Amino acid sequence: MTETPDDRELITELLTLLRGGEEEALRIFLRLARTEDVAEWLHTLGAEDRQRILVALDHEAAGAVLTDLTASIRSELVDEIGPERLARIAETLPADEAADLIGELQPHETEQVLSHIADEDEAVLRGLLAYPEDTAGGIMTPEVVALKPEETVDDAIRFLRSAGEEIPISAVYVVDDERHLLGFVRLRRMVTARPAARLGDIMSTDVISVPVDTDQEEVADLVDKYSFLAVPVVDAEHRLLGVVTVDDVIDVIEEETTEDIYKMAGSSAEEEESESVLHVVRHRLPWLLVCLIGTQLSSLVLALASRDIGLYAQLSIFTAAIMAMAGNTSLQSSTTTVRRLALDTLPRSRFVRHVLRETTVALLMGLVCGGAASLLALVFHHNPMIGLALGPAMAIGMAAASLLGAAMPMVLDLVSVDPAVASGPLVSTINDSLALTLYFGVATAILVLVG
Amino acid sequence: MTETPDDRELITELLTLLRGGEEEALRIFLRLARTEDVAEWLHTLGAEDRQRILVALDHEAAGAVLTDLTASIRSELVDEIGPERLARIAETLPADEAADLIGELQPHETEQVLSHIADEDEAVLRGLLAYPEDTAGGIMTPEVVALKPEETVDDAIRFLRSAGEEIPISAVYVVDDERHLLGFVRLRRMVTARPAARLGDIMSTDVISVPVDTDQEEVADLVDKYSFLAVPVVDAEHRLLGVVTVDDVIDVIEEETTEDIYKMAGSSAEEEESESVLHVVRHRLPWLLVCLIGTQLSSLVLALASRDIGLYAQLSIFTAAIMAMAGNTSLQSSTTTVRRLALDTLPRSRFVRHVLRETTVALLMGLVCGGAASLLALVFHHNPMIGLALGPAMAIGMAAASLLGAAMPMVLDLVSVDPAVASGPLVSTINDSLALTLYFGVATAILVLVG
Repeated sequence: MTETPDDRELITELLTLLRGGEEEALRIFLRLARTEDVAEWLHTLGAEDRQRILVALDHEAAGAVLTDLTASIRSELVDEIGPERLARIAETLPADEAADLIGELQPHETEQVLSHIADEDEAVLRGLLAYPEDTAGGIMTPEVVALKPEETVDDAIRFLRSAGEEIPISAVYVVDDERHLLGFVRLRRMVTARPAARLGDIMSTDVISVPVDTDQEEVADLVDKYSFLAVPVVDAEHRLLGVVTVDDVIDVIEEETTEDIYKMAGSSAEEEESESVLHVVRHRLPWLLVCLIGTQLSSLVLALASRDIGLYAQLSIFTAAIMAMAGNTSLQSSTTTVRRLALDTLPRSRFVRHVLRETTVALLMGLVCGGAASLLALVFHHNPMIGLALGPAMAIGMAAASLLGAAMPMVLDLVSVDPAVASGPLVSTINDSLALTLYFGVATAILVLVG
Repeated sequence: MTETPDDRELITELLTLLRGGEEEALRIFLRLARTEDVAEWLHTLGAEDRQRILVALDHEAAGAVLTDLTASIRSELVDEIGPERLARIAETLPADEAADLIGELQPHETEQVLSHIADEDEAVLRGLLAYPEDTAGGIMTPEVVALKPEETVDDAIRFLRSAGEEIPISAVYVVDDERHLLGFVRLRRMVTARPAARLGDIMSTDVISVPVDTDQEEVADLVDKYSFLAVPVVDAEHRLLGVVTVDDVIDVIEEETTEDIYKMAGSSAEEEESESVLHVVRHRLPWLLVCLIGTQLSSLVLALASRDIGLYAQLSIFTAAIMAMAGNTSLQSSTTTVRRLALDTLPRSRFVRHVLRETTVALLMGLVCGGAASLLALVFHHNPMIGLALGPAMAIGMAAASLLGAAMPMVLDLVSVDPAVASGPLVSTINDSLALTLYFGVATAILVLVG
């Protein structure tokens, strides 16, 4: 019986074996370890140790470990494996994972590996590789149990026995002679049914399936919404092609969320796939250059304001404060909006209401912060006029920034652009110049009126 | 046979029924609909229509719909349901979902509902309500199939038949007389085993379980890592208490990610639970006040710089640009760091290397952006000296901001504070004053040296 394995003890042992250079003992140690743990250890080791471990693993374990690694470390390791061993490793994996593994290679390398794979498996893999990565076809496994309605529970059990234990199966699918999907029988139902019962009689016909070109995010939403363990994938004629299982869906959810989070910060999750600094720069720099061009607007506002040098020198001391407060308020609004759109808890009918709510929240917070800022300006900078101008300008600036932060993602969503890009450098740049313009505008107006 | 249901048609029909006031037809329509769809429709309707639909649902459907709603809409609806109906609804739900539903009420309301529930179920619910919400105990269902090792596959099948179809079961657990967890038999294995086989002979003893007080995030990581459909929960004596299923884990992953994203923006996911503006303000305002106090540092830097008014008026035109570029670069670094820490792909042994990488990336981007900024300043503001100062200051400012953005989350992680708070207003405030100080410092130095 195992509790959660104690990582520290095992990894110490692994390090001892690596240092000692005892390849045979290492081999035995790795055979006894869970592949998921081995994958985790690899992330903490250096490149050389990783190679030694991969060499010491048998094909099946190597396959399981490789699929659990992050993309950058996997590609580093795969580069060192010859096409023949890679083919042997791929053969031990479920077809969808094998396709993912060899699909990441350069096209000519993929061909080399495929040439070492048995014809039948090769055809299946080529079929999977043809589907776009981020669709139902790209994440499904074609290994499903599909039987005819006239077959019995006993037939199905016999089929499951021959299929081996590795493939996780939560249901048996029922198809006609042309493989059109007719229904399914949950494993649970199979257990409790009479062995002689015909599948056609006990199947559920209320089956939700997804077309093979469905976006992976939609597939994940569906599995999440209905708490499915698997969802069948069909072609345009409703013929069964495979299933997407819940563990693939968890990966999709994490992948899509990561993509969203990176986009919000003006980057891309793909940057993680490489250790190369230039690769990361390529993903981040474009956003910063957009931002840089945008800052010209802020500079223009400041240049215009600086014409009256006396007033400007006093007012501009608080430009950083105004921009920071507007920026953070806007980030709060846009983050809430982007996340709720991603989680599908913000229907379009509530868009206007949501923007109003966010703006009201920001205005309230702006009154508090503006009041406090006025007070601070008075205490530390001894100028009541500046303090008087700072408060209202901050409140209005924060409300305007929040309006923009909440509305922008929803507008992007309406025109089918990913709302996550709205949180990034793009909006913050617009916000800065907006906040500055409001600040100098309101302040000048107040100073003119009062002064 | 159903494909993905066509929402638009159904919701049009629902609206017609609601407008027509035909309660009986509405009742029938709802009985034919999937509860997951009904929950989705409720999110798009007004409060009054939501109430009417909930009244028209039978207890079982109402329970399924309520568990699928967002917290704010659920609590609005639950407030209108009497304790007796709520008890009937709770009885139709799996115990963990029933506990979640009535656990959200005020303590005295929870008591009222519990008093209407049968004694045996009440005891189970009280047991579950005692576990903290965000632990294995708080998300597990106590409804597991636990049998003795000497019982047979046939016994297990008979037990499953009597248990009813609703409870999702992926394995049968094997326990001794004191309910100590000995092993498990996957449903898959049950199907293919001989009916007379003893569970003790065919069970897997290599079972990973979690203590009842394990943090829900750890439970989710475990299920994700090993691709489990369920993980058993045990007490300190290793007695089986329940299981956490994969659909609950998906909810945990979304919940924890949402919490992270909101924290990064200086807010809290709890704000969503209420429609009240003041409630939202309470979660966001504290961060902004921290930020406001922090901006005093920026104002101080600017106040010091403004002493030499002539130079200041020219330099300060670019303060917005410097701060925006430093802020966005820092956000890119901190976001990458926070997300990789959350996904466990950044082991502590690589911390220093990661910070160096991020800083190098930022320095490279800083050189490009600084160069471009110098050029822009030259073209639009006709002052080569300012341009000369702006470039290096921007490059150094961006690298420093990135260093801070990457290091801060890791330092917080080392001292066991949630790294997500590091991306928020806290770091951006420090960044602003750092960038301004560097800007005026470097610029003054260059202008003094060159001029």
